[in-house]
Amino acid sequence: MSEKISQAVIRRLPRYYRYLEEVEAKGVDKISSSRMSTEMGLNASQIRRDLNCFGGFGQQGYGYSVGKLKKEMAHILGLDKRYKVIIIGAGRIGHALLGYKGFMLEGFDVTDIFDADKGKIGTDIEGKKVLDINGLDRYLQENAIDLAMICTPKEHAQSIADRLVSLGIRGIWNFAPTDVDVRRGVAVENVHLSDSLYVLAYKLNQ
Amino acid sequence: MSEKISQAVIRRLPRYYRYLEEVEAKGVDKISSSRMSTEMGLNASQIRRDLNCFGGFGQQGYGYSVGKLKKEMAHILGLDKRYKVIIIGAGRIGHALLGYKGFMLEGFDVTDIFDADKGKIGTDIEGKKVLDINGLDRYLQENAIDLAMICTPKEHAQSIADRLVSLGIRGIWNFAPTDVDVRRGVAVENVHLSDSLYVLAYKLNQ
Repeated sequence: MSEKISQAVIRRLPRYYRYLEEVEAKGVDKISSSRMSTEMGLNASQIRRDLNCFGGFGQQGYGYSVGKLKKEMAHILGLDKRYKVIIIGAGRIGHALLGYKGFMLEGFDVTDIFDADKGKIGTDIEGKKVLDINGLDRYLQENAIDLAMICTPKEHAQSIADRLVSLGIRGIWNFAPTDVDVRRGVAVENVHLSDSLYVLAYKLNQ
Repeated sequence: MSEKISQAVIRRLPRYYRYLEEVEAKGVDKISSSRMSTEMGLNASQIRRDLNCFGGFGQQGYGYSVGKLKKEMAHILGLDKRYKVIIIGAGRIGHALLGYKGFMLEGFDVTDIFDADKGKIGTDIEGKKVLDINGLDRYLQENAIDLAMICTPKEHAQSIADRLVSLGIRGIWNFAPTDVDVRRGVAVENVHLSDSLYVLAYKLNQ
């Protein structure tokens, strides 16, 4: 696969994948870029260009096979693998993510949740016993973990990210309200819930 | 303000705003588009084009005034107003959002939280008593609410959105894992937490 796929295309992939899940659930077998365009609110030629970045999966005039396209898209996104995930921070966000339905189905298995608060360590959240963050180094030596979700307060996010990376974690999903930086070769997604709230405020005032 | 500002520009505005908050907190008064470019990872000419969409706030060679730019950006986004917000659904996500620090500071005041579950109605979450969804119509007649956050299960999201809109709500922040459709003139932001997880999986496999 080319390394030159733009960030903008990559950001659209999950939308395609979600859309394909929906039409497949409706029993649709074949889909045209023009129907996708109407239903997804994207330009049809952009859809064709995007899908061509990944080799193209359609034939001119025949449309795309929904099942095949979805399967290829899952493969491109890496959703045909399973991932072991830990959550750092057993506060509200950590709790909500632990209970978020769908992760298991999608192949993201939360194995454990950690906190630094003595009042939380050892308590049960969604059937998981909260583990002591002091045991993280040993835990990561003994367990092969793919991803960590950072749900700590803002001020601890970067130091915990640094520690996770030094312990071999290669992917970080950061929910603390600050961007964390990681070295090249480590994947990070900083989630900014407030960004979409700001866009909503913008739209509300138009 | 022009109606022709592209979606892509609008989506970048919260990033600019967050960035300006950070540099202002560091005591920076003036900032160049080239420094913004380096620190934000955006193209400098794109930054200048984006800011020009809103009239431009800088002088060639002198950089932008951080305070003025941030204030203008807040105004454009509508963050210089206050919003009254209700949450529909007192499950994990609703609970996490109710406790999410920063909303009050940013001008989004959650006034009340609703649920349909008799087991939750009347209980206390983060200092708010969970209200009965059956009382929603009357509540919205008696209270001027700007925004609703939908945190219900997927299958109830569209019907609750329809009800909210019919009761005069003009902005919906939807966390249910399905897109809700609203009529023209109503603002909606569908949050897809899993999208950034999928992008993370993609990056992890590069």
